[in-house]
Amino acid sequence: MKTSFIKNAAGRLVPSRINGEEHVPFQGLNRRRPQGRKARPLIRTCVDYPANGNKLVTSLQEALERAGLKDGMTISTHHHLRNGDALTNLLFDTIKSMGVKNLRWFPSASFPCHEHLIRYLEDGTLRHIEGSMNGPLGRFASHGKMRGLGVLRSHGTRYQAVQDGEVHIDIAVLAAPTADAFGNANGVQGKSACGPLGFALADSEYAERVIVVTDNLVPFPCVPWHIQGNHVDFVVEVDSLGDPAKIISGTTEITKSPDRLLIAEYLARFVEEAGLMQNGFSFQAGAGGTSLAFVNFLRARMKARGVKARFVRGGSTQTLVQLLEEGLTDYILDGQAFDQAGVLSLRDHPRHVNTSPFTSYNFHGKGNFASMLDVVVLGATEVDLDFNANVVTHSDGYLLHGLGGWQDCLFAKCVILAVPSFRDRVPIIVERVTTLCGPGEMIDVVITERGIAINPRRGDLRQALSASSLPLRSLYDLQKEVYEICGGAPARPALDYEQPVAVVKWVDGTVLDTVFRVVV
Amino acid sequence: MKTSFIKNAAGRLVPSRINGEEHVPFQGLNRRRPQGRKARPLIRTCVDYPANGNKLVTSLQEALERAGLKDGMTISTHHHLRNGDALTNLLFDTIKSMGVKNLRWFPSASFPCHEHLIRYLEDGTLRHIEGSMNGPLGRFASHGKMRGLGVLRSHGTRYQAVQDGEVHIDIAVLAAPTADAFGNANGVQGKSACGPLGFALADSEYAERVIVVTDNLVPFPCVPWHIQGNHVDFVVEVDSLGDPAKIISGTTEITKSPDRLLIAEYLARFVEEAGLMQNGFSFQAGAGGTSLAFVNFLRARMKARGVKARFVRGGSTQTLVQLLEEGLTDYILDGQAFDQAGVLSLRDHPRHVNTSPFTSYNFHGKGNFASMLDVVVLGATEVDLDFNANVVTHSDGYLLHGLGGWQDCLFAKCVILAVPSFRDRVPIIVERVTTLCGPGEMIDVVITERGIAINPRRGDLRQALSASSLPLRSLYDLQKEVYEICGGAPARPALDYEQPVAVVKWVDGTVLDTVFRVVV
Repeated sequence: MKTSFIKNAAGRLVPSRINGEEHVPFQGLNRRRPQGRKARPLIRTCVDYPANGNKLVTSLQEALERAGLKDGMTISTHHHLRNGDALTNLLFDTIKSMGVKNLRWFPSASFPCHEHLIRYLEDGTLRHIEGSMNGPLGRFASHGKMRGLGVLRSHGTRYQAVQDGEVHIDIAVLAAPTADAFGNANGVQGKSACGPLGFALADSEYAERVIVVTDNLVPFPCVPWHIQGNHVDFVVEVDSLGDPAKIISGTTEITKSPDRLLIAEYLARFVEEAGLMQNGFSFQAGAGGTSLAFVNFLRARMKARGVKARFVRGGSTQTLVQLLEEGLTDYILDGQAFDQAGVLSLRDHPRHVNTSPFTSYNFHGKGNFASMLDVVVLGATEVDLDFNANVVTHSDGYLLHGLGGWQDCLFAKCVILAVPSFRDRVPIIVERVTTLCGPGEMIDVVITERGIAINPRRGDLRQALSASSLPLRSLYDLQKEVYEICGGAPARPALDYEQPVAVVKWVDGTVLDTVFRVVV
Repeated sequence: MKTSFIKNAAGRLVPSRINGEEHVPFQGLNRRRPQGRKARPLIRTCVDYPANGNKLVTSLQEALERAGLKDGMTISTHHHLRNGDALTNLLFDTIKSMGVKNLRWFPSASFPCHEHLIRYLEDGTLRHIEGSMNGPLGRFASHGKMRGLGVLRSHGTRYQAVQDGEVHIDIAVLAAPTADAFGNANGVQGKSACGPLGFALADSEYAERVIVVTDNLVPFPCVPWHIQGNHVDFVVEVDSLGDPAKIISGTTEITKSPDRLLIAEYLARFVEEAGLMQNGFSFQAGAGGTSLAFVNFLRARMKARGVKARFVRGGSTQTLVQLLEEGLTDYILDGQAFDQAGVLSLRDHPRHVNTSPFTSYNFHGKGNFASMLDVVVLGATEVDLDFNANVVTHSDGYLLHGLGGWQDCLFAKCVILAVPSFRDRVPIIVERVTTLCGPGEMIDVVITERGIAINPRRGDLRQALSASSLPLRSLYDLQKEVYEICGGAPARPALDYEQPVAVVKWVDGTVLDTVFRVVV
């Protein structure tokens, strides 16, 4: 059947029906008013659960059987084990062996280690994936080989979709680096320690059945309980959840590239010179090499000026932990930990605080933490002349990255994209982004190694920087220069505009853009 | 209109309609299967909340107006400020001044300090109270002066009622000893520090509008956030929430009464000699003088035998804190703090852990903590020959106490009632309890200063104690002796069995018994 498209308020063509269900096209920023009430799980009774609190069952298969697994269900997992996750592959191997078919997999993200699951997309065990598809799975989907349409949601939008009842999870299977037999679980203890478990929060609250799988079973109570056992139906013990070396980095690495270091230095200078680095301020930056370098440069400036942050947002790293330990921030509010130092600090430091997509990102709540941030530094795969940005596809059309918390972070008071002006001789600043992930109205500054462009909407920032020696330029200027270096615009991708392979949701649950099949 | 009654499975007459709504009579233990799905709050959107996270409004009145206060609504409060609470009186003074009428007040408990509110029950500002009525309000209700019927629920049952949609809260007004302008709140910091805030959890999650009121506003983030700002609509700052000296005791006091000390010693001996005091065991006792003495006696026995508990349940006190600090328990799991030492320990000790009626008591969940306890020690106002017990009325029929977590705790593996055999020459062991709060099947042991009665259903306990020198007796024996001392049974209360004044709910939401008007 041919897909019919609607042009949404961002001028993008989006399907009106996605996997057989109606979805609302993007209506413009802050236009959609949600209707109705949240999803409501079944009322359970203690009569049906063991009075001694022991919910252990002997195997994942038994847990799935008792959870009522059957064809067509939605199975969710979280991605806190990142590329070290062995559980999800084991899960679908088990499901395959049970002969169950046609499932929707609803991960909070998928990683290259999940390439293993392509066989199940091919043989019909899995119908489709809703969740970010990094690397091989994205490539598979880009070739139009996935039966259903991918649905890409940010961390906050995933919470919103579950909370609002848009996605009903039948069975959540939650990897727990430490758990007790009641189902209380955390991610900061045990050999597979990964940091917070917040990406599994919505699943634990709203899934019909919740299975906790652990390789470090401790006597009740497992403290802290980032996942509450009162939401859990079954607990399964396994030898290993995955490869600790791939679950978290030993240490995250600061960039050594001169271009990236220059971007990082511009970032720190910009934050200070724009007047954003004030006592009690807050910021969030990622765990990439440029971001880490930025935090180090900023730290030096904070020390020099005697400025202290009230809070910084993780993903936590050694670099952020150092800020906390040096007293340069009162708190780290942490949604995930990227290295060993981040995990240990979250475990041991009382002001390194666990957060979740509910506290930080859910747009269908009574406010969230993201919009309180003074500064956020983000990356992008493409930025266009209207400051629109892309993070999921490359200019060749391939879907290779997830949204993460990227869209959610666009609500910060000052949003800075830190990008090299080109990668592998492909310009990053382009005329029109291949896929729209963030509307340009929400992006305030683009910082490259060749100069800094301030969104014309932010006259206040331009004003604050009027005496600065930073290389302020227009995006148009930057783009012209980069096109000259690279020999023009990126090659137009060969896309089949009749065949969508995924959609990008906006934080309010509307459909922002479509990813199309790459013709090979 | 005459109330029509039904005889429930406990043989008690209960009204079939309560305040105009259908309620299910008690059907026997573990018989009721809940149907349907949980309550579901409205979906909100960040569009309607300040992006900078500042939800402060200038006054309680403004907050109530913006929350849409109107006649007939249900207003909830928590009782963590106990008899030091000044906010609730201020709240209803404000509501009175706004001219709003006919409200249902849904506190997690009320205290003598709330005697002030009798005027509002009289003038129609309040229609009725659903929640425990300690002291003066209970006496007022007992005289048949409250318009609506009181509904007494345990801490767990209150959570269940809100979660299941049986009680819809329009506006929750939550006292917060510390909060930020986003609404994150805790009870462990500030001049009005009271300990946990768990009794307000259901209110924060399910109320249509949530107002946080604090006398210690801190910059975001308020850490820890026992109440999550993401549930909060408005924040109000006031000078004082109440009288710190009445919010918590400076110290809780161990009994000096020889009879109570004897009971406490019997308790400790019983727990050891019954084989319950084993490495890794758990127990809960109250904050009364006998309970504290029991814990001290038990501590000595634990030390003597080299036994360590895995966890103890609060309400926390200096006495429990000492166990934790001496390494005699791994954890305190705490639902409320009764003294200064309890509050400070919860604030500072990483293994003194905040809990809530959701984790500990909710019977309509996937298990709860209460049933995992090895031993619980509870009080009672009356126990009858079938081990049925009463905690809300006295033998004169007056409703003077709340249920607290008493019913929820009956699910522990060994439930011990510690009671004096008589009080003020009124026997406590009686032929039939005035009000049934706990079915005798759930009560394993009654310990008095005159002897110990083991429920015949617990042959295992009798067996374990076969060689003990403890004074094991039948309840019948004890009752006979006590009647002789006191000159017979308690005087029969003068009750009007046509006029119910309150009902006692069971943990599954069914109606267990009725409290009738006292004729004066």
